[in-house]
Amino acid sequence: MAPGNVPHFQEELDQLKSRLLEMGGLAEDRMSASVRALVDRDHGLVEKVLAGDTPINQLHIEIDGRCVRLLALHQPMAVDLRMILSAVKINTDLERVGDLAINIAEAALRYLAHPPVKELIDIPRMANIAQSMLRDALDAYVRRDMALAQNVLDQDDELDALKTQVFRELLTYMLQDPTTIEPALDLILISRHLERIGDHATNVAEKIHYMVHGDQLHRPRSDAV
Amino acid sequence: MAPGNVPHFQEELDQLKSRLLEMGGLAEDRMSASVRALVDRDHGLVEKVLAGDTPINQLHIEIDGRCVRLLALHQPMAVDLRMILSAVKINTDLERVGDLAINIAEAALRYLAHPPVKELIDIPRMANIAQSMLRDALDAYVRRDMALAQNVLDQDDELDALKTQVFRELLTYMLQDPTTIEPALDLILISRHLERIGDHATNVAEKIHYMVHGDQLHRPRSDAV
Repeated sequence: MAPGNVPHFQEELDQLKSRLLEMGGLAEDRMSASVRALVDRDHGLVEKVLAGDTPINQLHIEIDGRCVRLLALHQPMAVDLRMILSAVKINTDLERVGDLAINIAEAALRYLAHPPVKELIDIPRMANIAQSMLRDALDAYVRRDMALAQNVLDQDDELDALKTQVFRELLTYMLQDPTTIEPALDLILISRHLERIGDHATNVAEKIHYMVHGDQLHRPRSDAV
Repeated sequence: MAPGNVPHFQEELDQLKSRLLEMGGLAEDRMSASVRALVDRDHGLVEKVLAGDTPINQLHIEIDGRCVRLLALHQPMAVDLRMILSAVKINTDLERVGDLAINIAEAALRYLAHPPVKELIDIPRMANIAQSMLRDALDAYVRRDMALAQNVLDQDDELDALKTQVFRELLTYMLQDPTTIEPALDLILISRHLERIGDHATNVAEKIHYMVHGDQLHRPRSDAV
């Protein structure tokens, strides 16, 4: 790479990072809104989430384009190359988080057609953990902070435990009262969507190890219900 | 790129494609085995799927390494660059299919602890469609065959319809007989895992458009149950 290109390249890398953070913020917001809509039984907010995925999809395409341009024009090596490849993958993970927010909103819409099964405590708690995981994972990526990345992996265990707890509790409701089966199923699905959002945050956190060391971790994903 | 490098580069690209096909074959096999284990109530086969994800995880890492090496050493442009970036993403999709095969096997293990809820017809049918989608998507990628890629997208609608049908039918069982709730839930989960495998095949198929034209499609994912 010609030395004259270096500042330009660094500037573009910084822009890429800042757009990824923006993408993360959008994904977080959409997830939070979908769960808030569920808890507050807010039909208007559900509809807003369902109708509002254009900005995140556009940003996904823009970030992908930035990565391709950086690779094509600057031919980066080693850690820079891995950083950009990680951005490609993280971008995909964040887009999926956006899709999962839609899935949560769809399940919320069905849920709201029934009387409430129970007061919702654990699902908003799961959403808070997933949100904090996403935020930490992106911070860890931008700062190459391995300790913060490890923190994300630890929170994932907490999320899995809550998902199992939600399942067990709702199963009891379903067994006692068949009229709760249909809405309880949607709550179970929502808890699983939140757990998958945690998995995407975990994917992001795993990229930090790859970026710094150049090798990959394979962490088994638990699907126990 | 120096002209002397061209044959070497093409050779490495061909190897990459053939390793991706192998990865697709492994993912397909693991998914089929997990569903066969469920239908045949074959505990041994369930355990085999659960214990056997090392080869696919290793191949995932190897393919990722090949992509990085191709980008670093050959600095490809335009369609070749997009082809390699697509390989990075397809590789991730196929690894997730492998994870989903594990999830299916985990649900099958729980399901087999109960008496059968019903004869399984639609779930093996879903597995066949998902398998054919995966195969077609990879063939379309290797041959840059847009018509075959479109065929994958069409099959995805069929898979979604079957998932909804499975859900409706199992809901009836659950409402009539609460002892079926727990095993029926696992069948519902399995049908959703199969639908997600179809989504990954769809992701692969969408890459063909990107590879050939350089722009991306955003196809909304339905999560109706």
